[in-house]
Amino acid sequence: MAQPAERSGMSAPPGRLTGGVSGGATALWRPWMERALQLAALGCGRTSPNPLVGCVVLDAEGRLVGEGFHARAGTAHAEVGALAQAGQRARGGTAVVTLEPCCHHGRTPPCTEALIDAGISRVVVAMGDPNPLVGGGGLARLRQAGLEVIEGVATAEAQELNRAFVHRIRHGRPLGILKWAMGADGRTALGNGASQWISGQQARDWVHGLRASCDAVIVGGGTLRADDPLLTSRGRRDPEPLRVVLSRSLDLPADARLWQSATAPTLVAHGFGAPARRRFQLDQRGVERLVLETCEPLALLERLAARGCNQVLWECGPDLAAAALAQGCVQQVAAVIAPKLMGGTPARTPLGDLGFTSMEQVPAWQATPPRGLGPDLLWQLKAPQN
Amino acid sequence: MAQPAERSGMSAPPGRLTGGVSGGATALWRPWMERALQLAALGCGRTSPNPLVGCVVLDAEGRLVGEGFHARAGTAHAEVGALAQAGQRARGGTAVVTLEPCCHHGRTPPCTEALIDAGISRVVVAMGDPNPLVGGGGLARLRQAGLEVIEGVATAEAQELNRAFVHRIRHGRPLGILKWAMGADGRTALGNGASQWISGQQARDWVHGLRASCDAVIVGGGTLRADDPLLTSRGRRDPEPLRVVLSRSLDLPADARLWQSATAPTLVAHGFGAPARRRFQLDQRGVERLVLETCEPLALLERLAARGCNQVLWECGPDLAAAALAQGCVQQVAAVIAPKLMGGTPARTPLGDLGFTSMEQVPAWQATPPRGLGPDLLWQLKAPQN
Ligand SMILES: [Zn+2]
Ligand SMILES: [Zn+2]
Repeated sequence: MAQPAERSGMSAPPGRLTGGVSGGATALWRPWMERALQLAALGCGRTSPNPLVGCVVLDAEGRLVGEGFHARAGTAHAEVGALAQAGQRARGGTAVVTLEPCCHHGRTPPCTEALIDAGISRVVVAMGDPNPLVGGGGLARLRQAGLEVIEGVATAEAQELNRAFVHRIRHGRPLGILKWAMGADGRTALGNGASQWISGQQARDWVHGLRASCDAVIVGGGTLRADDPLLTSRGRRDPEPLRVVLSRSLDLPADARLWQSATAPTLVAHGFGAPARRRFQLDQRGVERLVLETCEPLALLERLAARGCNQVLWECGPDLAAAALAQGCVQQVAAVIAPKLMGGTPARTPLGDLGFTSMEQVPAWQATPPRGLGPDLLWQLKAPQN
Repeated sequence: MAQPAERSGMSAPPGRLTGGVSGGATALWRPWMERALQLAALGCGRTSPNPLVGCVVLDAEGRLVGEGFHARAGTAHAEVGALAQAGQRARGGTAVVTLEPCCHHGRTPPCTEALIDAGISRVVVAMGDPNPLVGGGGLARLRQAGLEVIEGVATAEAQELNRAFVHRIRHGRPLGILKWAMGADGRTALGNGASQWISGQQARDWVHGLRASCDAVIVGGGTLRADDPLLTSRGRRDPEPLRVVLSRSLDLPADARLWQSATAPTLVAHGFGAPARRRFQLDQRGVERLVLETCEPLALLERLAARGCNQVLWECGPDLAAAALAQGCVQQVAAVIAPKLMGGTPARTPLGDLGFTSMEQVPAWQATPPRGLGPDLLWQLKAPQN
């Protein structure tokens, strides 16, 4: 059996493989899978509509001879990069991949064939393809070609890493994250509407990073009118996430930073009822428009999924946020809480009406441990069922 | 020099004293002072209007021979209890006390005389009496009688422990803590007013403990009408904290759990304008009334200070909370945040209007690290200046 080699700067290496494929054997591959997951994460925010994938190739002696990850849609898959690094040393070796290798001809040739052609004798995968129509096909092809296939190594971690991709495949819409910043008293603006800045620099930097992990950032017309936001990752994502305005009326300012498409692309989504004159004004400004059958969060997300968005960020006001929640368009909440008591008008809180009439109806979300961001507190919640 | 002895179950004991009184010498007494502070804390919630005080007595060889703490107003001071335990072994010994010993005749004889009479030769104190009219008098009396006095040992810890007492002495009103429970979206009730239970059992237990550390718990008439609260520590404090209703109109329910004075005492504070008929109804129910010159938070706290309250808890609705904040009646906020998105009517948030018009006006409070209470999050804030 192959004995994976040690390598400095890496997770603890696997021990000697002493037998055939068994439950114990999967644990021995875990450190290499963790490295493959680290590689996969390097593509974060760049691979949509594709998943994040990482791959390491070990030679027949178990020495690391190749690493690769999927860096961007349309470029080489992780396996191809790792095999290219390995070259002839891949022969008789092992490929450790975070996701079941593809077996279909997309923009690139199928990775199953690349693995077979390279002479790989064993493939270790963390999770299958989440698409029920193709899932298992890649592994079947590998087994058919005589390769040993080991499944179930670090599956939970791989599913978490590709949570957004899996969500889009399963539900036909991107994973939604709802973000807000509020004072410790739940206020998101003062009585006169002032809200810059509730949170500190460290929290705002964190939000730029959050945007960089998303394919689109969505606001409503009210936020655009009130805040004239920029909504970019400040260069952390290239290209910047798509900035989306969902506006029934198209009552939008003539001048807005979102109209400057040199910074980042902007899309305005509206319904059939939007006035023709306002549509024309947007066209004149060169702003892309999207007509929705129903001007609702869910309809928007379905269109964004079709455009390849795996993950979107809602940075909208309370009413649109409540509508997005009610339509199942929010799977995660990121609440930035500043140590400030703002008081003020009751209208400016994070969420509008959700229709609950008893506390028993209100579900408990899954809380993650709170985290300090300078003086502010970040509390992330995941929906009870995703 | 005395060499304090070791004792199991205690903080690390002081090292050998090698010289006279110096900066270094105060550090050697710190472990004994920490023990004295632990003893002092045993009186928490029971000593008002007095401070929390703890004392340990060491014999001439530095062995622990007596411990005492102030358990309740009207009972023996900490020094007296510790000296009684020590008996003759106090002669030539050291008393380590968290607060400057008293030198005036109150309900008990002055502790300075007790220390002198017991033959103590050294007194170590953490902090002076915060009352500027008497502060230093006790130490001067001890020095005059020939005792060595060492000051400044664990001063910050002692001041924190008696923060409420010091606040009342300095400002003439009790320290105020404002507590609320809200969803992660800042809501304190649903659209129809339902609010039981936003937080879980662990958080509610914690609140009972918080009440036990307070001398009074204050609500407004709106909370009484909406929630019919019990406001007790569920027996953790004996006697239960005074339950106070601040009500301008005295428009209060005929039946309320607060009127059952067998559970805990209740006080209704109102202004001169309250209708005579409603005053009479309260008197008929046997509920104690307090007439304020102005029916305002600050006026109430001054009267509660006069009744011996060191620390009070505001468990009121947004408007009274905002008024209390605006009048400097809140030095600390305890926000219990549940992982729930409640949505709903905008009126039900923790705070009413505070009059801010720009975020620069909104002060940052001093945040303490958040803490999990079961599924809920506790975030405590201290006022920028106390
Ligand atoms: Zn592939
Ligand atoms: Zn005393």
